[in-house]
Amino acid sequence: MKKDEVKIIPLGGLDKIGMNITAFETDEDIIIVDCGMSFPSEDMLGIDYVIPDITYLIYNRERVRAFFITHGHEDHIGALPYVLKQLNVPIYATKLTMGIIEGKLEEAELMDVTKRNVVKYGDIIETGDFKVEFIRTNHSIADAAALAITTPAGVIVHTGDFKVDYTPVYGEPIDLKRFAELGNEGVLAVMCDSTNVVRPGFTMSERAVGDRIDKIFADHPKNRIIIATFASNVDRVQEIVNAAQKYNRKVIIEGRSMVSIFDIAQKLGYLEVPDNIMVDIEEIGNYTDEQICLITTGSQGEAMAALSRMASSAHKKVSIFPGDTIIFSSNPIPGNEKAVTKVINDLYDKDAEVIFENTHVSGHACQEEIKLIYTLTKPKYAIPVHGEVRHLKEHAKLCKSLGMDNEHIFVLHSGDVLKLSPKKGKIVDKVVAGEVMVDGLGVGDVGNIVLRDRQSLSENGIMIVVMTLERYGSRILAGPDIVSRGFVYVRESEDLIYEAQTVVREALERCLGSGVNDWGRIKTVIRDTLSEFLWKKIKRSPMIIPIIMEVD
Amino acid sequence: MKKDEVKIIPLGGLDKIGMNITAFETDEDIIIVDCGMSFPSEDMLGIDYVIPDITYLIYNRERVRAFFITHGHEDHIGALPYVLKQLNVPIYATKLTMGIIEGKLEEAELMDVTKRNVVKYGDIIETGDFKVEFIRTNHSIADAAALAITTPAGVIVHTGDFKVDYTPVYGEPIDLKRFAELGNEGVLAVMCDSTNVVRPGFTMSERAVGDRIDKIFADHPKNRIIIATFASNVDRVQEIVNAAQKYNRKVIIEGRSMVSIFDIAQKLGYLEVPDNIMVDIEEIGNYTDEQICLITTGSQGEAMAALSRMASSAHKKVSIFPGDTIIFSSNPIPGNEKAVTKVINDLYDKDAEVIFENTHVSGHACQEEIKLIYTLTKPKYAIPVHGEVRHLKEHAKLCKSLGMDNEHIFVLHSGDVLKLSPKKGKIVDKVVAGEVMVDGLGVGDVGNIVLRDRQSLSENGIMIVVMTLERYGSRILAGPDIVSRGFVYVRESEDLIYEAQTVVREALERCLGSGVNDWGRIKTVIRDTLSEFLWKKIKRSPMIIPIIMEVD
Repeated sequence: MKKDEVKIIPLGGLDKIGMNITAFETDEDIIIVDCGMSFPSEDMLGIDYVIPDITYLIYNRERVRAFFITHGHEDHIGALPYVLKQLNVPIYATKLTMGIIEGKLEEAELMDVTKRNVVKYGDIIETGDFKVEFIRTNHSIADAAALAITTPAGVIVHTGDFKVDYTPVYGEPIDLKRFAELGNEGVLAVMCDSTNVVRPGFTMSERAVGDRIDKIFADHPKNRIIIATFASNVDRVQEIVNAAQKYNRKVIIEGRSMVSIFDIAQKLGYLEVPDNIMVDIEEIGNYTDEQICLITTGSQGEAMAALSRMASSAHKKVSIFPGDTIIFSSNPIPGNEKAVTKVINDLYDKDAEVIFENTHVSGHACQEEIKLIYTLTKPKYAIPVHGEVRHLKEHAKLCKSLGMDNEHIFVLHSGDVLKLSPKKGKIVDKVVAGEVMVDGLGVGDVGNIVLRDRQSLSENGIMIVVMTLERYGSRILAGPDIVSRGFVYVRESEDLIYEAQTVVREALERCLGSGVNDWGRIKTVIRDTLSEFLWKKIKRSPMIIPIIMEVD
Repeated sequence: MKKDEVKIIPLGGLDKIGMNITAFETDEDIIIVDCGMSFPSEDMLGIDYVIPDITYLIYNRERVRAFFITHGHEDHIGALPYVLKQLNVPIYATKLTMGIIEGKLEEAELMDVTKRNVVKYGDIIETGDFKVEFIRTNHSIADAAALAITTPAGVIVHTGDFKVDYTPVYGEPIDLKRFAELGNEGVLAVMCDSTNVVRPGFTMSERAVGDRIDKIFADHPKNRIIIATFASNVDRVQEIVNAAQKYNRKVIIEGRSMVSIFDIAQKLGYLEVPDNIMVDIEEIGNYTDEQICLITTGSQGEAMAALSRMASSAHKKVSIFPGDTIIFSSNPIPGNEKAVTKVINDLYDKDAEVIFENTHVSGHACQEEIKLIYTLTKPKYAIPVHGEVRHLKEHAKLCKSLGMDNEHIFVLHSGDVLKLSPKKGKIVDKVVAGEVMVDGLGVGDVGNIVLRDRQSLSENGIMIVVMTLERYGSRILAGPDIVSRGFVYVRESEDLIYEAQTVVREALERCLGSGVNDWGRIKTVIRDTLSEFLWKKIKRSPMIIPIIMEVD
């Protein structure tokens, strides 16, 4: 590389929302911005999480200097416990972000071996060829930061996830002045959040939700109030606590992640909780409806979350009664609509009042906010990030509408290597990038073949045909027996199974009778015969596994 | 029952949208309105369709007189081929509705044995204790009808699925005059569509979509135009054909259901197709982009539908190129959002222009239309239908806002038996109602146990442990062997499988060594031992199936 060049390599976060991780590289050094996980897509059966493939970083490990984390959401920090095990470099993050990361490191027993550096807005960290400055932004979690990364090619501003909130609940508005200063000093490229790029206008202030929540409390003085929201939205939780105090209600926190983040945020000073307002859920029975404000997980309809269990009468400590006021302070994340609807229906069926309108605002910038950032920073290049293809391409259109050259806008895919210099930007290479699936403790040991099997098993079940044959001979010593799972009710389909057994036995006898004693060949015949029989009979294709045991 | 009573028994359609079927019953006679299917919910793995449980009707089959079908959508007719096999009574429906039903009967080889009666709006069919009048309505399919059912207790108006369209594309507006006349004569109860009851205002006319489509054609004179919509929305297809003709484009129809309904609608006169406008898809290469208008299935992102295959480069005859204009003339049905988004992203990735705003209107009435129907018919009782619990309860609130008594509004669950007389309405009983799952040719042979197995298989895979043991003895003749599917890449996890095998062998030897030769007991030990080993080792729980073969 020439001296005035830098490479930008997104290893995730560009083909779908989630799993954000981007490398910045010179000949000497590599730094990484964010290290997130994502949730499995619907075809990844049984998978718990998805983390980025960091083969490229491992390969260049001796040059990797540090992680810079923009904020504490799972899609920006969730893969750290996995990745740190292979690539143990220091982490830089703001206080709350680091607090949440530390919770994860403790669980993964990585606290002792990981260098953690808490930074403040305005801090500049110098590491090799890079200088990284943390800039205050607003988002749906406190302590979010944009990064101004000084590289040999110039300054690259990475917005992280952001919105412009002039009246945030905690702390100050986004540091627009600093963006403007950087613009005056000269910005090479902006990598900007695309999540809401198709929405016109401006995202509402978090404060608007606080006002709405206050109004709901005022309008429901006699009802028990239960509010589901995102555990990590500490400001939202603060607004709910404020309303509870104003209307003389006790606050109960329910749901594992809610309790955990509540504790961290309170300990680090991001949540002001009045004395004597908190009540343990065990004591809920000691208070009347009008005294209770319960803050819970489950806003996404997750089957095992507290609110879902309350709605389906499966929660041990809280039952829903007519007149209960349930607030969803959230929008369904795409893909969760049906699950959320199910919970809402369950709550309606118990004659609770369900409120989900105007009770949430996004944490991401809409079009006018995005335009504001470009107008302040005046970058030469735009690299839309944090979005699906459609968001990135619409983001590119927005940049064009601001007068940017088409050749200066880069819509990348994960793995693309973009080389930037003050004069020129070009995709010069493609490196390994992709999704690594985590299932239980297994990382990457479930791949496409296993998933294809799971898909097939889930749709049609399995039929196991097992038999013991004489080694080198042609006698059937036991079987063939058929065992099925996920195929039919055996009790109701006894005849079918019996017939199948007969079909298999006949095929097996034909094979052995005609002198075939190649077990592989016999298995194929059995699989084909049985498969054909079942399709003809019932139009289904279970997975068929013939197993032959040999005995002398 | 007293002479002035009637029972209303919804056997489906009330707990979720889909699978509409309602029985009306006197001591002498039963008639059935609609007979729909629904699509499986996400936990019904491998299930193709869901149809209503008609045990109650079978049990009372000698009194069942006829099916009256309101319109030709799957959730109103889809279960007919299954139900008719058990309950062969005459069907009454309007012309297009019957045309679509006949397509299904032909496939099921039921044409010869089924009495089909095509009715016109205004026709009154008398059958036993009931008189059923078909009333013109508007919906997202032509020839939709409401029913005025004269019963011993009074007149019950069933709206079917409807909207009020003053400027429909085909035929006349809904027959509001007839609703008003019925109101003057006296209506006992209204059973009204709840789908859009939470939406304020009035549903737009289908004509609005026609204007929008015309505008898109005008704005894209040089681009190829591809439009995805619901095959059964014949009026929508007509509007697209009209635009194609106006802008001198040829029309190509693609997708099985699109071709099929296009043919039926054209044959029956519901679709006017200009001469020489149709082109076979095989000839697409003979035309330039500006000459082509392709109407296709796939508006819901269905993986196998034509548009999805085009988007993912898996369609044999049509590839997407930069500049193609793709219109989704549809909204995603709840649950399909992610699939639709995937197709849209694939299209963006090919630099096609994707248009999905203001290109669709609902076929269902919003609040003001629903109020109009109640105001015209002035019923004593309201029985909200066609909705999830939340819709039905909100519908009840709307009725109350119109001044109806709370005791005159019945929010039912499927299976509830509502007895109505001019004086009184009461839920008097509950009959069997539920979902019967169809998987291939199997109807009802997949139940909860099978589904639970499929769920477990899909999440964790299966591990089969097979061994041949000496009958009545304690010798291991072969095995134990382990075969797994959907669990791990065996090649990458050889050690794990080997260890598992050792663990199983040791457990088996311990059992046999200590004189246990109860195969059931041995299987339990093997299952428990292996399960514990795998959970400890890798935190996963595959289904474990030990199989023992006996040899003398």
